[in-house]
Amino acid sequence: MAETEKDILRGGQFLVKETNCEDIFTPEDFSEEQQMMKESVIEFNDREIIPNKPRFEAKDYALTEEVMRKAGDMGFLSVAVPEAYGGMGLGFVSTVLTCDYISSGTGSFSTAFGAHTGIGTMPITLYGTEEQKQKYVPKLASGEWFGAYCLTEPGAGSDANSGKTTAELSADGKTYKINGQKMWISNAGFCNVMIVFARIEDDKNITGFIVEYDKNNPNGITLGEEEHKLGIRASSTRQVFFNDTEVPAENMLAGRGEGFKIAMNALNVGRIKLAAACLDSQRRITTTAVQYANERKQFKTPIADFGAIKIKLAEMATNTYVGESATYRASKNIEDRIAIREASGNTHQEAELKGVEEYAIECSILKVAVSEDVQNCADEGIQVFGGMGFSEETPMEAAWRDARIARIYEGTNEINRLLSVGMLVKKAMKGHVDLLGPAMKVQEELMGIPSFDTPDYSALLSEEKAMIAKLKKVFLMVAGAAVQKFGPDLENHQQLLAAAADILIEVYMAESAILRTEKNAKRFGEDAQATQIAMSKLYLYHAVETIETKGKEAIISFAEGDEQRMMLMGLKRFTKYQNFPNVVALRNEIAEKVKAENKYCF
Amino acid sequence: MAETEKDILRGGQFLVKETNCEDIFTPEDFSEEQQMMKESVIEFNDREIIPNKPRFEAKDYALTEEVMRKAGDMGFLSVAVPEAYGGMGLGFVSTVLTCDYISSGTGSFSTAFGAHTGIGTMPITLYGTEEQKQKYVPKLASGEWFGAYCLTEPGAGSDANSGKTTAELSADGKTYKINGQKMWISNAGFCNVMIVFARIEDDKNITGFIVEYDKNNPNGITLGEEEHKLGIRASSTRQVFFNDTEVPAENMLAGRGEGFKIAMNALNVGRIKLAAACLDSQRRITTTAVQYANERKQFKTPIADFGAIKIKLAEMATNTYVGESATYRASKNIEDRIAIREASGNTHQEAELKGVEEYAIECSILKVAVSEDVQNCADEGIQVFGGMGFSEETPMEAAWRDARIARIYEGTNEINRLLSVGMLVKKAMKGHVDLLGPAMKVQEELMGIPSFDTPDYSALLSEEKAMIAKLKKVFLMVAGAAVQKFGPDLENHQQLLAAAADILIEVYMAESAILRTEKNAKRFGEDAQATQIAMSKLYLYHAVETIETKGKEAIISFAEGDEQRMMLMGLKRFTKYQNFPNVVALRNEIAEKVKAENKYCF
Ligand SMILES: Cc1cc2nc3c(=O)[nH]c(=O)nc-3n(C[C@H](O)[C@H](O)[C@H](O)COP(=O)(O)OP(=O)(O)OC[C@H]3O[C@@H](n4cnc5c(N)ncnc54)[C@H](O)[C@@H]3O)c2cc1C
Ligand SMILES: Cc1cc2nc3c(=O)[nH]c(=O)nc-3n(C[C@H](O)[C@H](O)[C@H](O)COP(=O)(O)OP(=O)(O)OC[C@H]3O[C@@H](n4cnc5c(N)ncnc54)[C@H](O)[C@@H]3O)c2cc1C
Repeated sequence: MAETEKDILRGGQFLVKETNCEDIFTPEDFSEEQQMMKESVIEFNDREIIPNKPRFEAKDYALTEEVMRKAGDMGFLSVAVPEAYGGMGLGFVSTVLTCDYISSGTGSFSTAFGAHTGIGTMPITLYGTEEQKQKYVPKLASGEWFGAYCLTEPGAGSDANSGKTTAELSADGKTYKINGQKMWISNAGFCNVMIVFARIEDDKNITGFIVEYDKNNPNGITLGEEEHKLGIRASSTRQVFFNDTEVPAENMLAGRGEGFKIAMNALNVGRIKLAAACLDSQRRITTTAVQYANERKQFKTPIADFGAIKIKLAEMATNTYVGESATYRASKNIEDRIAIREASGNTHQEAELKGVEEYAIECSILKVAVSEDVQNCADEGIQVFGGMGFSEETPMEAAWRDARIARIYEGTNEINRLLSVGMLVKKAMKGHVDLLGPAMKVQEELMGIPSFDTPDYSALLSEEKAMIAKLKKVFLMVAGAAVQKFGPDLENHQQLLAAAADILIEVYMAESAILRTEKNAKRFGEDAQATQIAMSKLYLYHAVETIETKGKEAIISFAEGDEQRMMLMGLKRFTKYQNFPNVVALRNEIAEKVKAENKYCF
Repeated sequence: MAETEKDILRGGQFLVKETNCEDIFTPEDFSEEQQMMKESVIEFNDREIIPNKPRFEAKDYALTEEVMRKAGDMGFLSVAVPEAYGGMGLGFVSTVLTCDYISSGTGSFSTAFGAHTGIGTMPITLYGTEEQKQKYVPKLASGEWFGAYCLTEPGAGSDANSGKTTAELSADGKTYKINGQKMWISNAGFCNVMIVFARIEDDKNITGFIVEYDKNNPNGITLGEEEHKLGIRASSTRQVFFNDTEVPAENMLAGRGEGFKIAMNALNVGRIKLAAACLDSQRRITTTAVQYANERKQFKTPIADFGAIKIKLAEMATNTYVGESATYRASKNIEDRIAIREASGNTHQEAELKGVEEYAIECSILKVAVSEDVQNCADEGIQVFGGMGFSEETPMEAAWRDARIARIYEGTNEINRLLSVGMLVKKAMKGHVDLLGPAMKVQEELMGIPSFDTPDYSALLSEEKAMIAKLKKVFLMVAGAAVQKFGPDLENHQQLLAAAADILIEVYMAESAILRTEKNAKRFGEDAQATQIAMSKLYLYHAVETIETKGKEAIISFAEGDEQRMMLMGLKRFTKYQNFPNVVALRNEIAEKVKAENKYCF
C-alpha cells in the first residue's frame, strides 16, 4: 500500500517530478466497460440531443428536462453514485467520460447535466449523512428528482462566502428559516432539491442545506423569470428567492459553517468535469469544420487545401488531443487516489473528497485550459465557414456562444488561474509538494556554467521531454523568485500570478500530450502515432512560446539589473530547442490527416 | 506639387521609410469642422441609436430603416458625396470619423450605414457616368433611397469573381436581363438601388450594374427571408434572386468586365471604414467595463483594483488608442493623396479612386487589426462583468456577437492578411515601393558585425522608435528571404504569408501609436501624455513579442542549417530591447488612469 501511494504523483507534484509515460492513463487505456459506457453515451447524444439542437436553441426548457429524464433512464445520472444509493458506482474516469461524451450536442444540456450530477448531487453524496443520502441520492441518481445548487447571490459571486442569505434556527431547534436571494441558478426551473448556502447568525462561514422544492407547495420559494442569456439557451437559469423557507434542522449538510468548504470542494470536481464537457464539443466542431472545408470550394480549390485553413484544422485538432490527454490523466490520478484512500480505511465518501481535493490544482488548470481551447476552436470553426459561420443555420455560432460560459462559471478563469498557483504555493508551505528544493537547485544551476554538451535526442520525443523538464525550471525560477521577493504579499501581485499560472498550465498540458503519445507509440508503434507525434510537438512549440512570453513578462516586471539579466538568461536556456521543429510542416501533416479522415480521428 | 507628392508616403512605404511624427495626422488634429462633425454624430448616436438597443436586438428592421432616414436628414449619409450631387463633400477623414462615431450603438445600424454609404453608394460616385450620378447619388445621399451591394453568391464568396449571375443583352441592345442568386445582401430588405455584379457571356470578369428595386414593381427581383444571424440582429440580410430582371443598358457601371475592379476598390474603402466602425465600440466597451469594475465589489474590493482586471482595462484602452492612431493616420494619407491627384488634374472621381487604391495595403492591415481588437475588447468586457456579462441585460454580449462579423465581411481576415503582403510584394515588383534595396541592406547587415554601441535612448520614445526601425528589418529579412526562395510560388505558402502579414500589421499599428504620442508630447508636453506614452510602450512590447513569435515560426519553417541560424540571430538582434519596459507597471499606470477617469479618456 505505502508503495502504491508513493508511485502516484500527488497533486501539483507533476511540476517537480518526472512522470513515466507508463504511469499515465490515456483515452487509449479505456477498459471494456469504459468503452461501452462511452459508446452508449455517444449513441444517446446522437439520438436524443444533437437532432434536437433547433429545439434547444429555441429555449425549449421542457425538452431539457425531458432529455434529462431519459438520461436518468439510461443510468447516466448515476454513474458516480455509489451502488448503495441506487447508482452505478463507476469510477472517476467513467464519470468524466460521461460528462465528456454527452456534452457536444448543446451547451444547454451539458450544463443541465453537469449542474445536476455535479454540484446538485455531489454535495449530498460527499457530505451527506446516511439518512440524507438514503433519502435524496437514489431519487437524484434515477432522474426522478433533479438538483440545483444555490451559492451565487447578486453581491456574492467570486466571493462566494460573502452571501447575505440567512438561516435562522427556530426556538424549538427543529427548523431553519432561510431568507435571501440567489441568482444564476442552473436547473432552477425544474429542480426538486436545492443545495442552498446560507449564513447562521454572524458565522464567518456559510452553511449548506438540502432544501426541497415543490412547485405546488413552494414553502416560500419563488423563482425569477428565465434569464436571457448569450448562450446555453435551453439551460434553465433563474433567480431563486427564499422567504421564510422552512428547512428541517436535519437537512443541514455537514456541520454549521462547513458550507464554504463544501462549496469549494463541489467546485473542484465540477472543474475537471467542465473541462471534460468541453472536449466533445471540440471534437465535433473540428469534424464539422473539416467536413465543410473539404466540401467548400473557392478559387476552384477545396478551402481545406489553403494554408490559412490548414493552420486552423491543425491547431483545432491538436488542442483537442491535448485537452483529452490532460483531462484523462488527471481523472485517473483522482480515481487511483480514491482507491488508495479506500484501501487505507477511508470511507468511500472521505476517499472521494480527499482524492479530488488532492488534485485541485490540476482541476483548475484543466478548467482554464480546456474552456479557452473550446472557445478558440469554435471561433476558428466560424471562420472556416466564412459567412455561413455567422448563420444560425450552421452549428458553429451556437457552439461559440455556448463555449463562452465555460470561462465564467465554476470559478472564473481569472480566479482559477490565481488559485492554481496559490494552491501550489500553499502546498509547498505545508510540505506536501517540495518546491523549495527544486527551486533552489534551479538557482544554483543559473549560477553555474551551462553545459555545452549536445545531448542525443534521437529517441522519440526525447528532446520534447527534455524541454518539458526545462520548462518546469522556468516556473520554479519565476515563481520561486516571486515568492522570495513578495512573501505572503504575492497574492496581491495578480499580474505575476497570472503569468505564472500560464506557465504552469502549459507545462501540464504539454507534458500530458507528450506522455500520452510516447506511451502509445511504445505499444502501437511510431507509425501508428505519426500524427499524434506531430500534434505533441506542435503543442509543445506553442507552449514554449507562451512560457517564454509569460516568463519574460514576469521577470522584466519584478526583477532589475543583474537579477533580471540572470533570470532572462535562465529563461533563454530553459526554452532553447536544440532542433527547432518545422511548424508549417507539422501543421500540414496534421491537417492532411484530418482532411483525409474527414473528421477528428484521434 | 512634385514636392508635396514626395513628402507623403506612398502606400506600403511606411515599411521602408521613416515617418516624422509631424507628418502624421492624429485625432488630436481634427479641424474645428471635424470636431463639430464628431460631436454631432456622437449626439445622434446617443439620442437615436444607443437608447434603442433593445429594439435593435429584437430585430426591429423597421427601426433600422427609420434611423437611417434620420441619419439622412442629419446629412450623415452624404458626408463623402460631392456637393455637386447633393452631398457635403467633406474630406476622407470626415468620412471615416462619421463611420467611427456612429458605430457604437449597435452593429446592426453600423452595418446598415456602412453598406449604404460605402459599398451601396461609392461604386456610383466612383465609377458612375455623370448621368448615373445625377440620377442616383442625390437620392442616396439624402436617404430618400437606400443602397445595397450584391456581389456574394452561394458559390462565390472570397472568390468574388466566380459568380454565376448572368447579364444578357437584348437583341435591340437596350436592356440587360439579369438572372441569378445573390446571398448575404445587407440592406436588401429596404433598399431601392442595388449594385449588382453579373457576367456577360463568357467574360473573364464580371460587370457591375445599377439595378433599381421597387417592391411594388419588382421586375423579377425576389428576396429571401431575413437570415437568422449570430449578431447584428437588426441589420437586414437577405438573399436576392434575379429572374429576368431588366436593366437599361445605360445602367452598366464603368465598362463591360470592369466589375471585379469596381468590387475590389469598393472593398478597399470599405475596409478602412470598417476598421473605423470598430473603434467607437471599443471606446464604449472600455468605458462600460471600467464603470462596472469601479462599482462592482467582491472581497470588499472594487474589482477594478484586482490585477487580473487591471490587465484587461489596460489592454482594452491601449488597443483602442492604437487602432485610432493607425486609422486616422491612414485616413489622412488617403485624403492628402486625393488632394494631390486633384491638384495635378485628376477629376475628383479619379483622384478618390487612386487615392484609396494607393493605400490598399494599409486598409487591409487596419481591417484585420481593428476587427480583432474589437473582438478581444468585447470578450474581456464580458469577462469583467462575470456572470452578468453572459446576460442580455448588460451590453457586453451583444457587442461580442456584433464584433464577430467584422472578421468575416469586407474580405475575411485570412484573405486580407494574404492580400496585405501580396499587394506589397506586387508593389515592389512594379517598383512602386523599393523593398529590394532595403532587404538587401538588411542581409548585408546580417553578415556584418553587429554594433556594440550603447545608443543614447534618453529622448522620449527614442528606444521605441529605434525598435520600430528594427522590426521593419524583421519583415524585410523574412519576406525577402521567402520571396527569394519561392518566387511567384510564394502565394502557395499561405502559412508564411500569414506570419509575414502579422509582422507587417504589428509594425504599422505600433508605429502609428508611437508617432501619434510623440507628436502630441511635443506639443502638449510629456506630462499630458504620460498614459499615452505608457500605452505606446505597452503596445510596442506586445508587437515585439508577436513579431518574434511569427518571425521565428516562419524562419524555422523555411530555412535550415546556417541560413536558419543566421536569420534567427538577426531576429534576436532586431527584437532586442536595451531597456525592457516594466510591463506590469505600464499596465497599472494605464489602468489607474482609466479607473480615475471612469472612462476611456484619450
Ligand atoms: C449561465 C450561468 C449559470 C450559472 N449557474 C450557477 C449555479 O447553478 N449555481 C450557482 O451558485 N452559481 C451559478 N452561476 C454563477 C457563477 O458561478 C458566477 O457568475 C461566477 O462565479 C462569477 O461570479 P460573478 O458573476 O458574481 O462575477 P464577479 O465575481 O463579480 O466577477 C467579475 C470579474 O471580477 C473578477 N474577480 C472577482 N474577484 C476577483 C479577485 N479576487 N481577483 C481577481 N479578479 C476577480 C472575475 O474574474 C470577473 O472577471 C452561474 C452563472 C451563469 C452565468
Ligand atoms: C452578415 C453578413 C453581411 C454581408 N453583407 C454582404 C453584402 O452586403 N454584399 C455582399 O456582396 N456580400 C455580403 N456578405 C458576404 C461576405 O462578404 C462573405 O461572407 C465573405 O466575403 C466570405 O465569403 P464566404 O462566406 O463565401 O466564405 P468563403 O469564401 O467560402 O470562405 C470560407 C473560409 O475559407 C477561407 N478562404 C477562402 N478562400 C481562401 C483562399 N484563397 N485562401 C485562404 N483562405 C481562403 C476564408 O478566409 C474563410 O475562412 C455578407 C456576409 C455576412 C455574413
